[in-house]
Amino acid sequence: MPRSAADYINSVRDGRVVYYRGGKRVDDITTHPIISIAVKHAADLFDVKDRLYDDPNYGRISRYFKVPRNTNDLLERYKLIYEDTLRFDGLFNIVQAIGSDALFSLMIVARKVDRKYGTNYYDRVMKYYEYVVKNDLAIAVAQTDVKGNRAKRPHEQEDRDMYLRVVEVRDDGIVVNGAKIHTTQGGPVANEIIVLPYRAMVEGDKDYAVAFAVPANTKGLKFIVRPVLEYDGNPNAVNAASRFEVESLTIFDHVFVPWDRVFMFGGEWDLAGQLAWTFATYHRFTAISYRAATANLYLGAALYAARANGIENAPHVRDWLVQMIMYKEIMRMGAMAAALEPWIDEGIAVPNPPVYTNVSKLYANAHFIDVVHGLIDIAGGLIATMPSHDDYINPEERQYISKYLRGAVDGDTRYKIMSLVRELGASHLMGYLLTAMIHAEGSEAASKIGMLREYNYKEAEELINKVLSKIKL
Amino acid sequence: MPRSAADYINSVRDGRVVYYRGGKRVDDITTHPIISIAVKHAADLFDVKDRLYDDPNYGRISRYFKVPRNTNDLLERYKLIYEDTLRFDGLFNIVQAIGSDALFSLMIVARKVDRKYGTNYYDRVMKYYEYVVKNDLAIAVAQTDVKGNRAKRPHEQEDRDMYLRVVEVRDDGIVVNGAKIHTTQGGPVANEIIVLPYRAMVEGDKDYAVAFAVPANTKGLKFIVRPVLEYDGNPNAVNAASRFEVESLTIFDHVFVPWDRVFMFGGEWDLAGQLAWTFATYHRFTAISYRAATANLYLGAALYAARANGIENAPHVRDWLVQMIMYKEIMRMGAMAAALEPWIDEGIAVPNPPVYTNVSKLYANAHFIDVVHGLIDIAGGLIATMPSHDDYINPEERQYISKYLRGAVDGDTRYKIMSLVRELGASHLMGYLLTAMIHAEGSEAASKIGMLREYNYKEAEELINKVLSKIKL
Amino acid sequence: MPRSAADYINSVRDGRVVYYRGGKRVDDITTHPIISIAVKHAADLFDVKDRLYDDPNYGRISRYFKVPRNTNDLLERYKLIYEDTLRFDGLFNIVQAIGSDALFSLMIVARKVDRKYGTNYYDRVMKYYEYVVKNDLAIAVAQTDVKGNRAKRPHEQEDRDMYLRVVEVRDDGIVVNGAKIHTTQGGPVANEIIVLPYRAMVEGDKDYAVAFAVPANTKGLKFIVRPVLEYDGNPNAVNAASRFEVESLTIFDHVFVPWDRVFMFGGEWDLAGQLAWTFATYHRFTAISYRAATANLYLGAALYAARANGIENAPHVRDWLVQMIMYKEIMRMGAMAAALEPWIDEGIAVPNPPVYTNVSKLYANAHFIDVVHGLIDIAGGLIATMPSHDDYINPEERQYISKYLRGAVDGDTRYKIMSLVRELGASHLMGYLLTAMIHAEGSEAASKIGMLREYNYKEAEELINKVLSKIKL
Amino acid sequence: MPRSAADYINSVRDGRVVYYRGGKRVDDITTHPIISIAVKHAADLFDVKDRLYDDPNYGRISRYFKVPRNTNDLLERYKLIYEDTLRFDGLFNIVQAIGSDALFSLMIVARKVDRKYGTNYYDRVMKYYEYVVKNDLAIAVAQTDVKGNRAKRPHEQEDRDMYLRVVEVRDDGIVVNGAKIHTTQGGPVANEIIVLPYRAMVEGDKDYAVAFAVPANTKGLKFIVRPVLEYDGNPNAVNAASRFEVESLTIFDHVFVPWDRVFMFGGEWDLAGQLAWTFATYHRFTAISYRAATANLYLGAALYAARANGIENAPHVRDWLVQMIMYKEIMRMGAMAAALEPWIDEGIAVPNPPVYTNVSKLYANAHFIDVVHGLIDIAGGLIATMPSHDDYINPEERQYISKYLRGAVDGDTRYKIMSLVRELGASHLMGYLLTAMIHAEGSEAASKIGMLREYNYKEAEELINKVLSKIKL
Repeated sequence: MPRSAADYINSVRDGRVVYYRGGKRVDDITTHPIISIAVKHAADLFDVKDRLYDDPNYGRISRYFKVPRNTNDLLERYKLIYEDTLRFDGLFNIVQAIGSDALFSLMIVARKVDRKYGTNYYDRVMKYYEYVVKNDLAIAVAQTDVKGNRAKRPHEQEDRDMYLRVVEVRDDGIVVNGAKIHTTQGGPVANEIIVLPYRAMVEGDKDYAVAFAVPANTKGLKFIVRPVLEYDGNPNAVNAASRFEVESLTIFDHVFVPWDRVFMFGGEWDLAGQLAWTFATYHRFTAISYRAATANLYLGAALYAARANGIENAPHVRDWLVQMIMYKEIMRMGAMAAALEPWIDEGIAVPNPPVYTNVSKLYANAHFIDVVHGLIDIAGGLIATMPSHDDYINPEERQYISKYLRGAVDGDTRYKIMSLVRELGASHLMGYLLTAMIHAEGSEAASKIGMLREYNYKEAEELINKVLSKIKL
Repeated sequence: MPRSAADYINSVRDGRVVYYRGGKRVDDITTHPIISIAVKHAADLFDVKDRLYDDPNYGRISRYFKVPRNTNDLLERYKLIYEDTLRFDGLFNIVQAIGSDALFSLMIVARKVDRKYGTNYYDRVMKYYEYVVKNDLAIAVAQTDVKGNRAKRPHEQEDRDMYLRVVEVRDDGIVVNGAKIHTTQGGPVANEIIVLPYRAMVEGDKDYAVAFAVPANTKGLKFIVRPVLEYDGNPNAVNAASRFEVESLTIFDHVFVPWDRVFMFGGEWDLAGQLAWTFATYHRFTAISYRAATANLYLGAALYAARANGIENAPHVRDWLVQMIMYKEIMRMGAMAAALEPWIDEGIAVPNPPVYTNVSKLYANAHFIDVVHGLIDIAGGLIATMPSHDDYINPEERQYISKYLRGAVDGDTRYKIMSLVRELGASHLMGYLLTAMIHAEGSEAASKIGMLREYNYKEAEELINKVLSKIKL
Repeated sequence: MPRSAADYINSVRDGRVVYYRGGKRVDDITTHPIISIAVKHAADLFDVKDRLYDDPNYGRISRYFKVPRNTNDLLERYKLIYEDTLRFDGLFNIVQAIGSDALFSLMIVARKVDRKYGTNYYDRVMKYYEYVVKNDLAIAVAQTDVKGNRAKRPHEQEDRDMYLRVVEVRDDGIVVNGAKIHTTQGGPVANEIIVLPYRAMVEGDKDYAVAFAVPANTKGLKFIVRPVLEYDGNPNAVNAASRFEVESLTIFDHVFVPWDRVFMFGGEWDLAGQLAWTFATYHRFTAISYRAATANLYLGAALYAARANGIENAPHVRDWLVQMIMYKEIMRMGAMAAALEPWIDEGIAVPNPPVYTNVSKLYANAHFIDVVHGLIDIAGGLIATMPSHDDYINPEERQYISKYLRGAVDGDTRYKIMSLVRELGASHLMGYLLTAMIHAEGSEAASKIGMLREYNYKEAEELINKVLSKIKL
Repeated sequence: MPRSAADYINSVRDGRVVYYRGGKRVDDITTHPIISIAVKHAADLFDVKDRLYDDPNYGRISRYFKVPRNTNDLLERYKLIYEDTLRFDGLFNIVQAIGSDALFSLMIVARKVDRKYGTNYYDRVMKYYEYVVKNDLAIAVAQTDVKGNRAKRPHEQEDRDMYLRVVEVRDDGIVVNGAKIHTTQGGPVANEIIVLPYRAMVEGDKDYAVAFAVPANTKGLKFIVRPVLEYDGNPNAVNAASRFEVESLTIFDHVFVPWDRVFMFGGEWDLAGQLAWTFATYHRFTAISYRAATANLYLGAALYAARANGIENAPHVRDWLVQMIMYKEIMRMGAMAAALEPWIDEGIAVPNPPVYTNVSKLYANAHFIDVVHGLIDIAGGLIATMPSHDDYINPEERQYISKYLRGAVDGDTRYKIMSLVRELGASHLMGYLLTAMIHAEGSEAASKIGMLREYNYKEAEELINKVLSKIKL
């Protein structure tokens, strides 16, 4: 049954173990001064108008969970994520997007595993999917292991828990131990956590080849939330005062998972890589869709800053605007092209994996820094040295600040614009976003590997063969 | 009636005035040792299988002339140009593409002019279009004026002929004088030349606001062809030995144009800019379509060079391949997105002008140099210092060259690959292509202007307004 | 008389008007929880061993105030600033450097003004210089005006105070009104403020062509300090917990300046630009000297992060290290070359203005962002999502964090390294430094203007003339 | 005894075996239509005024052979190379520079070998040095082997001759077999060829660890010269019509070398790497010195093209000029800094190897392409499509070309400028230079390896250790 924001908020008041900035556990995430904002941000998704559709099998459910079958479904998914991100002030809110990314990949790979190994994972996945969509749940995905020494495989690590693994197999399920880090977007505020393998495995790694789902309040599960310094302790937060997601170091301290929630385990290690990679493809498609929306924050802020400074026609400003437009639009082009030429795998449409998704994702990783560079260059050093909001509202200082901050617009207006620009260009939030843009949903190196692994050189090779045949020795 | 390659070749033996490397006119372009190759290249287009379709109004005509009405028509047009470029060994062959780019823009703008000024240009355009498609003609477009002092408008130039202009109005037509340069792709080997204004005009420029078409053998028309040094005098030409287009400085020495071939003139100077710009949009769409195909030459050559050197898994080589894939695919993404979100203008589909076409065109202008950089880096200094083809086939030297040029493959194979790489990376052809990639179909500056002129900031502005409203002073 | 750190600290407890984060004035900057750290940072300069030298005219004084006469003096000055910045943990401490930059430029320009206008500024400057060096003062420079609408000159602004100006001329001195922003490095903790014109002036601007010095506790002078969020409210500050400079919006509310402290005024508007520009040259030389030292923080942090992650030999890591080395060394090369080919002006050595100082300054502006990019890429997403220091020291969480943060080194070591990297790569401090690196001591645009204004093309022009003469038409 | 140009020319008419473009050997390189130009270019060096100095040991000899002992010697060497390159129209002429680079490295390493192995190489080197300087010889260096499969060491190659090696040891000397490629700058026109090992060797490679010198007309030595297509067959050559060096594939077909010309062999394989690397350091110093001069050609051509087009104040043109200035000046800065902080090795000054030489060399490799990009962007597409020189001098065409090529200057002047720009930006010469700038004197990868191998991280490490010690867990 579709839920309201209030329903969702009630549902996460469930005894889960959450830590924030040490010392004591968070009793109730819905009232905690920091984490409640992330809860509210997630909750807003449930009050979006027109967020549901009528599914022939499952009734009225969230559009995020619509299994894509063709170009049109993928185009709609791109627009859904893009528009919702705009709706939520340009900051991502993927508490159903990421879960559906995981579910679609589990559907595809479970069928392959079942076919190869005679297992019944597909039924489990579909049963779990039904549970999720009918209860309209918020879902986080825990994929990235802490990884220890990056030069070693999971089973070669000195401490065997550097990748999450099965430590006990019981009649009624499995017990897992380990920790997942930073990709658990929204983990502490989700209803359910889906766990996926991080990478391709070899046979020795089979205890690590595991996929499953657990509720957020499962015994042994602990969330150590990142410090949200873009808001916490920052008197000058603007957008970050009401919008953010929280990531966590997520501890699985001997967590039990019943069999019907286990979607891959052990013997199927040879398909772990494909599961990791299919999820990555869906999730990169999600990434380019929401990042294109976030790019509007930067493009718009740069435009307003240029106008406030009276320099919007300066050649270097125009050049930066061009860079920002390219940043935004290359992601949108990539999403469209990925939808236009999908791979159909097990009857489900995967946004073109080796090319368009990765090309635009890589562009997004590598060039966000140019967007930041441009914004700072346009804004001026003011964003590093201007007075605090505390000063502005102090009448004794305000007279001076308001007078002296005027530009091509009055002082109050310019201060507001520059406050936002300071947040986007010279604050903790920028550091967080820049790191996220470089690493989230796969680093630059990961995007390159993704691109080269499956790139089809045939067209180029045939052309070269044809041309080389012209040479007579 | 559709023509064969032979029909086309016969048709350009028509007494046109062509100069090549001075001294004497070219008597017959179809037998001239250099220009005949460009003729043959163009001719090949007429022998392509499946190049025709059944048009409801005009019968069986070339697919290049199909007026695009929707996304699908534009997607087909992109693929047609892309695939034909691959077919012609990666080097562009746009002798019908560019003409149709011009015809579509004339159709759109002629209707606007007629509506505003009560003229009958649209009928003239359609009559000319019928003539072109029924006779299956090869067409060049002359748009770029020689421009003189770039700081001055057409009518402000010291020598009034720096932009082509009408010097006499007669009962039966107009007389024009001036010269057009380097965008007249294929001019000397086309059947017809369509002339378009280069830029937006002001009232004082009205003698310059002129569009028309003339046959290539019109009296007063003279083509001074560029020296084709990628082949002429180059013992090491590979692809360039059989494939190239020729550009010219095209002189209009008091050329008469009858009224039915005049498509814009004088009074309508205020729409000259729109005509120039609509053509530019179509032609940039053509550009990203053929350039994506050309990119395969570089991607493939880099791959083969890496293999021949035994370094295809070296990290810097992989990074260059990623750059080359991005170069190719961002253009394809742009073409797809431009087709997916066209502007419908006067019932005709224009590939999304302000965004996708210009974004990918600008990427194409700015980053071809990285493709060249990568190819050279992968190939090694060999391509600058290796022996000539003349040496290779001299038995006395061949024994040494063949022995010492072996890499991870035998010497003959590596020599062939490196010959192609030399042509693509360290030869006159590279200089020509690099200049073309930077300037053809509009320079980087032109692409930026195109992008910013019509970019819709509304989405970004609304977002910023919403966020700024959170700030309370 | 040379001062100790304690002497300096006592000297700034002088009743100056300082605001920090609104509400109430700072009573004593030496005890204020935030600003006292900046005071302590500045104070440390006075306890540096060997910081003095024996000047033939002024006795034992700070080496910062040694007037450079030749290459060797400039090389020593570069090394002094570089080594002191390393000494102060990589964060700049220019409380005597910037003052001497201003004093040297005043010496040079005052002589020119006196020669042209028969004034006696040079004597005033030298008297003030004697006062400064003998009392071993800490000095800030206020140059950047708030500027209002950047499209207008000082005297054209709607509010005439957008550039600091003389509002009254009295027998005993002048009264100035206006505000200076963000370049007043260390302003709130200095003994003296030297005010310089921001730009070249025209005659109409003559009330704005003013240079002078005042003590920090002068009546009417008010410092609105920037919020030091890299430490204030940040539980994870590392280097920023003990090292920072504070900038301010500095208000001159009808401040009186006696004649002997006025170094340029009004009639000499035509030399205001030269004063601004000479100071900029010295200050950019200071900038490349300290930035090269700061670069070590990033280079070292990247190296340690790579080792902690076990990836220091990965090709992309090596590429980033190369970029960071280039960043550091191009600045050092620039400083050396600027010293090696100085301009001698009025007997004083100016570090080569149009070329080496600006070239390396521009490189420093434009490429710091690559340094940040590299650091983030090497570190991983961990720096955005890892637990807070508060969490780490909570025993309940520490067991998990320490266990799961191990890499190629143990968890505690990696946490320490990643804490520093988080500060340098994904925090408010990074936003501050990035903005500073782009804008401080002149933006990229300013560096370009500086470079082109005086660049000597003669060598290139002669070469081209010689080559062109080979062409016979 | 110092030689004149005529002396030099006579000396190379010596029966050497040279091939050019196949078919037949070159009888006399001093009269051959192509190679004689390279001879003339080299000869010009011998007629330079003030090219000699008085050496205390060797009398009046070429300044190129002055063994550098300190900063000043290195600064003078940089200026000598820079100024001679300007003198020779911006195109390098290193027929004594490269030989002295090799001789200095042989002096340094021979001493180390002698000390370690009790050999007497140093005496042989000095005797050979005396022979060279007293006879004022032109010298080429052959270092780069053909290398076969790059994944294998010399002794692992399928064909053992992929690196030059000793195939026979006789009482009176050694016999070598193999081939050297493309770094043999000026090989075919030199008096002597010095052969150096290409890389560090392992014990299995000891037959390959060989250094020696032979006269150019030695039996078994054969030069297969690169095709000089920047002039040969190019009607539009400007600078290339009178200035170029020739490289060759240099065959050593069982060449005998007497013992007194052998400078390293076999047992000393462990010092082969040091010899290769010391030469590389000297030669990269030579490279940045001559490339900085060549950069003037591009800077000047861009400036003239901008003026001819009337766009020298356009913002994008100014940006390109800034890039070109940076290209030129970062090399000069690097040369100065490398001289200012040399390494003194065996009493000889080596230009700072790990840092300044490699940093500026890497910048030179990586950014020449930006210089080319800028020149093309400023010039316009004209350089790809403009008429040939043949056309210009044909009176029938000239009237049109001259008229229509006018810009902000008259048509003849603009044609001349654009002819040079065509050569530098869109011709075979550009392909040759671009490849050379990327690969000559070591590729980008080689420069990076050179930089990282000896880079001293100590300063950065100490800083990080100091900062990390602030963190208390």
